[in-house]
Amino acid sequence: MEAIIINTGNELLTGETINTNASWIASKLYNIGIKTKRIIVIGDDCEELKKAIYWSISEKPDILIVTGGLGPTHDDKTIECLSKALKTPVKVNAEAYKMIADKYRELNLPLTPERTKMAKIPVNAKPIENPVGVAPGVELKIGKTTIYVLPGVPKEMTKMMEKHIIPRLRLETRDMRSIMKTVTVEGIPESSIAPILKRIQDEYHGIEVKSHPIGSEQKPKLKIVFRLIEKGSLKPETIVDSAIKKLWELLGEAYSS
Amino acid sequence: MEAIIINTGNELLTGETINTNASWIASKLYNIGIKTKRIIVIGDDCEELKKAIYWSISEKPDILIVTGGLGPTHDDKTIECLSKALKTPVKVNAEAYKMIADKYRELNLPLTPERTKMAKIPVNAKPIENPVGVAPGVELKIGKTTIYVLPGVPKEMTKMMEKHIIPRLRLETRDMRSIMKTVTVEGIPESSIAPILKRIQDEYHGIEVKSHPIGSEQKPKLKIVFRLIEKGSLKPETIVDSAIKKLWELLGEAYSS
Repeated sequence: MEAIIINTGNELLTGETINTNASWIASKLYNIGIKTKRIIVIGDDCEELKKAIYWSISEKPDILIVTGGLGPTHDDKTIECLSKALKTPVKVNAEAYKMIADKYRELNLPLTPERTKMAKIPVNAKPIENPVGVAPGVELKIGKTTIYVLPGVPKEMTKMMEKHIIPRLRLETRDMRSIMKTVTVEGIPESSIAPILKRIQDEYHGIEVKSHPIGSEQKPKLKIVFRLIEKGSLKPETIVDSAIKKLWELLGEAYSS
Repeated sequence: MEAIIINTGNELLTGETINTNASWIASKLYNIGIKTKRIIVIGDDCEELKKAIYWSISEKPDILIVTGGLGPTHDDKTIECLSKALKTPVKVNAEAYKMIADKYRELNLPLTPERTKMAKIPVNAKPIENPVGVAPGVELKIGKTTIYVLPGVPKEMTKMMEKHIIPRLRLETRDMRSIMKTVTVEGIPESSIAPILKRIQDEYHGIEVKSHPIGSEQKPKLKIVFRLIEKGSLKPETIVDSAIKKLWELLGEAYSS
């Protein structure tokens, strides 16, 4: 299964906010065997969101996660723009309305237009309960792609992913296993280890082998990551362990003489 | 001036690495009056990079910054993919070759194919010196867009931006000023302040007013950001200060009675 993530918010484009939402989501998806193919970050801008949605949907990912722009303010326009992009009208959803009305009743606050706005979702969508804040998320299907729209506030987004989305996706990926193992090699420049890594990459088809310099060519220290997402029955951990063993063997051959 | 950022690297799509490169670059650009319009994150994948480049260039941004995939290993293929996307052949660039040869001479290491690969750049490109690592960056122009390709290793990318790119861009944006000021409002839910922020946004055209809940609707605390990029002569700071004054006035009116 494959996912695309769209994060919206001008604060992500000015550098004020580091996009930890994207890495958090990507990591949770990877852990249950879903690869993120692309992350797109745009501002609070309808045209940009429409383009990002077209560009994402044209790839037919299984999942498209959109974060940000679900709140009560003028710049919270993700639902409006999404509905324009998909040419689906929005209307007040009874279930979403009840979620919001219940929250504000508890707070003893009236249902102003800014508040009821959060209950308007595309007609073919279902609301997702927000256990932390107010604005409900949205789930809808376009072709084979399930779109999840979630708030940008990290503590709301993460709770909604953990409570509603990850468990549901896990049912579909339950026989997938994802493995990621890291080894550290010191004293060999990345440019010297390159042909060895290429050989392992070619030999262990499906595994991904990648070096990250944490030192420099001059004072080399490399983090080498081995990744594999596979059906559980194929014992992905054994394959990765064998590739790591091969790395030490090849390094031994190259540097013992 | 407008910029688009493309960050490449599978580690950004598995959540292992938080994309601090994007926020660092966006923040540096914002400080010198350049708005980032879009950030695209993709893996070490030629087809994805080609698509991201097409999608970016079709927007005719002034600047396109691409990070990652410049090193000596099999997965470092940004230059090769960029040249395919732009249909520009690559060849060994004499200046880039000298940069690389000098570094490895100092290290007493021979020029293997993995090392000289880093000197191959598109024929219409100029190399950018890497003061920290080995792989040179690349600068080339397509229409009105200047493309900068930089390594993904943060300490290499940041030094190259600071030494070579920011000072050059600053010459072009020298009469721009960017202002960003933040105030904190406690005790008023975001949904209540929404109409006030909308009014300020409408009245102060060009300014961007945005609220970020750091509390919740139940226990509200809001960070309100005012942003403006303008020509220095228009005194952007005065405009922002006046909008902030207006906020306090409107809050006073709404909450004093």
